[in-house]
Amino acid sequence: MPIPAPVLNPPFNIIRLSHVEFGVINLAASRKFYTEILGLQITDEDEDTIYLRAMEERGHHCLVLKKKPEAGIDYLSYKVFSEDELDKAEAYFTGLGHKVEWVTRPFQGRTLRTHDCFGAPMEFYFKMDRLAPIHQQYALYRGVKPLRIDHFNCFAPNVDTAVEFYGKLGFRVTEYTEDEETGALWAAWTHRKGGVHDIAFTNGHGPRLHHTAFWVPTPLNIIDLLDLMATTGYVGNIERGPGRHGISNAFFLYILDPDGHRIEIYCSDYQTVDPDLEAIKWDLKDPQRQTLWGAPAPRSWFEHGSTFTGVGTRDADLKASPIIAP
Amino acid sequence: MPIPAPVLNPPFNIIRLSHVEFGVINLAASRKFYTEILGLQITDEDEDTIYLRAMEERGHHCLVLKKKPEAGIDYLSYKVFSEDELDKAEAYFTGLGHKVEWVTRPFQGRTLRTHDCFGAPMEFYFKMDRLAPIHQQYALYRGVKPLRIDHFNCFAPNVDTAVEFYGKLGFRVTEYTEDEETGALWAAWTHRKGGVHDIAFTNGHGPRLHHTAFWVPTPLNIIDLLDLMATTGYVGNIERGPGRHGISNAFFLYILDPDGHRIEIYCSDYQTVDPDLEAIKWDLKDPQRQTLWGAPAPRSWFEHGSTFTGVGTRDADLKASPIIAP
Amino acid sequence: MPIPAPVLNPPFNIIRLSHVEFGVINLAASRKFYTEILGLQITDEDEDTIYLRAMEERGHHCLVLKKKPEAGIDYLSYKVFSEDELDKAEAYFTGLGHKVEWVTRPFQGRTLRTHDCFGAPMEFYFKMDRLAPIHQQYALYRGVKPLRIDHFNCFAPNVDTAVEFYGKLGFRVTEYTEDEETGALWAAWTHRKGGVHDIAFTNGHGPRLHHTAFWVPTPLNIIDLLDLMATTGYVGNIERGPGRHGISNAFFLYILDPDGHRIEIYCSDYQTVDPDLEAIKWDLKDPQRQTLWGAPAPRSWFEHGSTFTGVGTRDADLKASPIIAP
Amino acid sequence: MPIPAPVLNPPFNIIRLSHVEFGVINLAASRKFYTEILGLQITDEDEDTIYLRAMEERGHHCLVLKKKPEAGIDYLSYKVFSEDELDKAEAYFTGLGHKVEWVTRPFQGRTLRTHDCFGAPMEFYFKMDRLAPIHQQYALYRGVKPLRIDHFNCFAPNVDTAVEFYGKLGFRVTEYTEDEETGALWAAWTHRKGGVHDIAFTNGHGPRLHHTAFWVPTPLNIIDLLDLMATTGYVGNIERGPGRHGISNAFFLYILDPDGHRIEIYCSDYQTVDPDLEAIKWDLKDPQRQTLWGAPAPRSWFEHGSTFTGVGTRDADLKASPIIAP
Repeated sequence: MPIPAPVLNPPFNIIRLSHVEFGVINLAASRKFYTEILGLQITDEDEDTIYLRAMEERGHHCLVLKKKPEAGIDYLSYKVFSEDELDKAEAYFTGLGHKVEWVTRPFQGRTLRTHDCFGAPMEFYFKMDRLAPIHQQYALYRGVKPLRIDHFNCFAPNVDTAVEFYGKLGFRVTEYTEDEETGALWAAWTHRKGGVHDIAFTNGHGPRLHHTAFWVPTPLNIIDLLDLMATTGYVGNIERGPGRHGISNAFFLYILDPDGHRIEIYCSDYQTVDPDLEAIKWDLKDPQRQTLWGAPAPRSWFEHGSTFTGVGTRDADLKASPIIAP
Repeated sequence: MPIPAPVLNPPFNIIRLSHVEFGVINLAASRKFYTEILGLQITDEDEDTIYLRAMEERGHHCLVLKKKPEAGIDYLSYKVFSEDELDKAEAYFTGLGHKVEWVTRPFQGRTLRTHDCFGAPMEFYFKMDRLAPIHQQYALYRGVKPLRIDHFNCFAPNVDTAVEFYGKLGFRVTEYTEDEETGALWAAWTHRKGGVHDIAFTNGHGPRLHHTAFWVPTPLNIIDLLDLMATTGYVGNIERGPGRHGISNAFFLYILDPDGHRIEIYCSDYQTVDPDLEAIKWDLKDPQRQTLWGAPAPRSWFEHGSTFTGVGTRDADLKASPIIAP
Repeated sequence: MPIPAPVLNPPFNIIRLSHVEFGVINLAASRKFYTEILGLQITDEDEDTIYLRAMEERGHHCLVLKKKPEAGIDYLSYKVFSEDELDKAEAYFTGLGHKVEWVTRPFQGRTLRTHDCFGAPMEFYFKMDRLAPIHQQYALYRGVKPLRIDHFNCFAPNVDTAVEFYGKLGFRVTEYTEDEETGALWAAWTHRKGGVHDIAFTNGHGPRLHHTAFWVPTPLNIIDLLDLMATTGYVGNIERGPGRHGISNAFFLYILDPDGHRIEIYCSDYQTVDPDLEAIKWDLKDPQRQTLWGAPAPRSWFEHGSTFTGVGTRDADLKASPIIAP
Repeated sequence: MPIPAPVLNPPFNIIRLSHVEFGVINLAASRKFYTEILGLQITDEDEDTIYLRAMEERGHHCLVLKKKPEAGIDYLSYKVFSEDELDKAEAYFTGLGHKVEWVTRPFQGRTLRTHDCFGAPMEFYFKMDRLAPIHQQYALYRGVKPLRIDHFNCFAPNVDTAVEFYGKLGFRVTEYTEDEETGALWAAWTHRKGGVHDIAFTNGHGPRLHHTAFWVPTPLNIIDLLDLMATTGYVGNIERGPGRHGISNAFFLYILDPDGHRIEIYCSDYQTVDPDLEAIKWDLKDPQRQTLWGAPAPRSWFEHGSTFTGVGTRDADLKASPIIAP
């Protein structure tokens, strides 16, 4: 099945991915990881919750850590273009028959909560507390020196379904992997903000969050992080990389936080604002789609993901051929 | 005068700056400069014209070199969201009383030509020949390894006028310099595509093009270019840099092509897609707005620009205070 | 057995490793690999032989490629401090009962050929044709932009024997791996020129050359090489890396030339000129000695090496414990 | 006058420059500068003195800060090959008629103090407390992440005299600037340890210390430092750079400490261990000898230096031609 044509006038206007809330078991351990190693800045914290932002962000948070008895993903959140768009979103999801509710989120304005085609919780808002710029306070930079949250990547039990659902929300496909034999999508990268992706989907048991990515400008930031992790007790948290993906051209590193939530550190993407940008198609049998160069991914990278709190999962409709790498 | 509120629903939808046509006297000299030194890729050429693109671009050209008896800027061109937007643009400019005409540009679809508030020629199109990706053909990378055209910067005889005119087209101000005493704008950076700028304006004799910028990912690309230019006969073409601007946070280098058209090589910008992004204000008396660090700009950088072919210029309304650096 | 005390007044004065001659089956294929991919500069060539140097070297060659029916290593060559030292070397090796002969090598002065404790051919010379500097001819830089040959690494059937033999020649140990149970050396890094190594030895079937290393200043040079190799048909020649060794702190990449001769690209070493520099000891059971971070080495990296032309090999005296990685 | 032939068997064996003692007026201000900005590690301190080392050094100190009523340079110190060499040094300087004395320096063994041909104090030692390696403790890296002290650069009232004096001590010239008209040396770079220089001399009122240099691996370390200094109140301490010297190929930055002692941050040198390395000659009229690329040096860079405590200075014998840049 070919990828659907981009929806250029979606029912409401999502600007970009915004933030994610991680349920974490040991808040102190997560705090240390995200501030000293990853280098995010705390913008607010209490006994149960820590809010963080990356260095060029002016919104109050791109990551919320919530102390929980079990690790999980509470929701993925998106920023819309204006308050009006929230009402359009409410109407749209109501029309789909999805449950919608207005929830209270500290430091944010009106926030709409619903779920995607697999039941994964999505939240939308327009207003968030705006903070003074810190991108030129170079003395604050730590760890990998993260500049901004870049994207989410999810296991989807059916990628064609995901691309159709998110496509109708205006997410445009930039690159994708197709199973040449069946024509089914194996994976797809989709964006709103003009980069390679705001959210990507890979065939697998889901819905689960595969990773959350942060953008850095150069591979040297990633190498600095590797040196730091390898010599501060975090060598076991390095899962895969560094390497370069064929898809997206990303120079990547995948690491695991203390609860196993996977973080990608990412650079070398490209600009995708043209509405007539042609999606790049990769063959599932081309090993360079996954790894332009670099060591093969470990088994855990294909299998492990974070579940969404309270959301059931199911196996993928499409099974991996035994002769191809996932 | 405060900067105007952003126009979030402009009369037609400009996606981004697209390309510029330079009148050049010696086409062979320019060809060598833009391919061997800057590292752009030729996509078409004949006796009089060379078309070039940067490494991640899929559109046919971001720079057109046209053999002319005199050096000059023929037009600045912008890509719009769809064919329909061109008709809206025609209506809009006609309504303003600006001359509009449909022109033929090779490798492009319908192209509307008009001019801005100072008479500088602007062109708009939606369709351009799309080329296969080359961003992963690493053997093709040369010179500074430019990834994409990033922005234009113009001398404007009145920056308040420029910001008002371009603001109505939907260009949103990201940073600006204000003369604290008069409240007049000295300079402003405005964008459509989600970076710090598609076009910026600085107070000065104009309209003239101050520079065209190309984006590279790291300062090391710029240092490689400096080493190359300094040892291949182009040391005299290095005008200013490297350094970092306070405004935009750009790590920059300014070089001059064989006709004196100024090129900026640029990295370290940030993402500006939020419609509620607050513009950053700089005081004209703050020297770090211009140069966060680096040697002072030479006089030529403040004075020299390229005129638009056939377009008259006038002095700036606002005079530089004798005690402040321009 | 502890490592021997450094010999500070050796019988003759070796300055540094100098060059290696590779027997290669397809000279054209090797020429392409070493010039277009690795970026070495040809200083002379004929039908059978190609001489190459790296970008900061003034000596005529650091690598000689010789067309041969079988791939192999013809000799490792070292530069001594003066002509007199060659005569001292002749006397020393004669005293050891090693065969010595004066051989003719193009572009070199008097050259003494003998062999080490395992029969591996060593050559010594003082004079080599000196060439004009090219390190500031930045237009010549290609591929990984190699600055200089850095070291050899050999499989030794007995590392204690190697360290004793080379130690008497003045090679000083900078880092080493010891089998804590037996006290035997598993591997050792030894230098003459003030870096971490001119030659290193690892326990294994030998003598064989494990790799020849070239020095580059930054990890970005290595990433550029990976991108280039991955997209020009050489992805299969990437064997291991990038990663960082605990030992030597090297940021490394291992690649294989068309004949399977292994090349390391190397940065991040340190200065070792102090005669009282303490060697750093690593435990064979510490996985970070091998890989501070990075994917585990593939089996080939532990097993494959280049034999010395006409020189027999034998198994290592020390067997790898089945529970530890090699 | 041609540069003298290298002295390959000097009267005693100096291994490398080792450290310098700076007299500083405000110890707290200097402490902050050298630890938070430059990133050196404190190895010992009391009310009057701070000892520091760079990240790859194992010797106890490369810089000593001593609280003094007036800023100045107390001595430049060199490490010799063994204790015996100190006695040879004593005999040599005594033979020259230079005053010699054995002085006590904390954390060092026997230390010989004397002076050079201009009266500048030199100290020699072999033993210094050795510290555990910290180069792989990446969490400790700060500021410019300095790896090691690299060289001294002095104003000499007669560079021919300096080269002759230091040449007899075994310092070998790697590059030099000659006044083509008179044949006099304008500047010379001389080394012991196998890099471009341990000490360099430039024609000028002296003896004075022009700068002390620290080595970093990449230009990005220097750019990080510039960003940090420009945003932490040290923008006024940036004197010159970044740029590249023709001589030595150094990518450089010059900064001033709180007392005006000049520090160079330096990368991109090359290896010089060959005893037959030809010195590179530059013409005083070639502007690229000074600045391969980059802004012209400010006047202060040519005129300002640190005096040696208690040592008189005199004008240079050679006057700068009015038409050439210094």
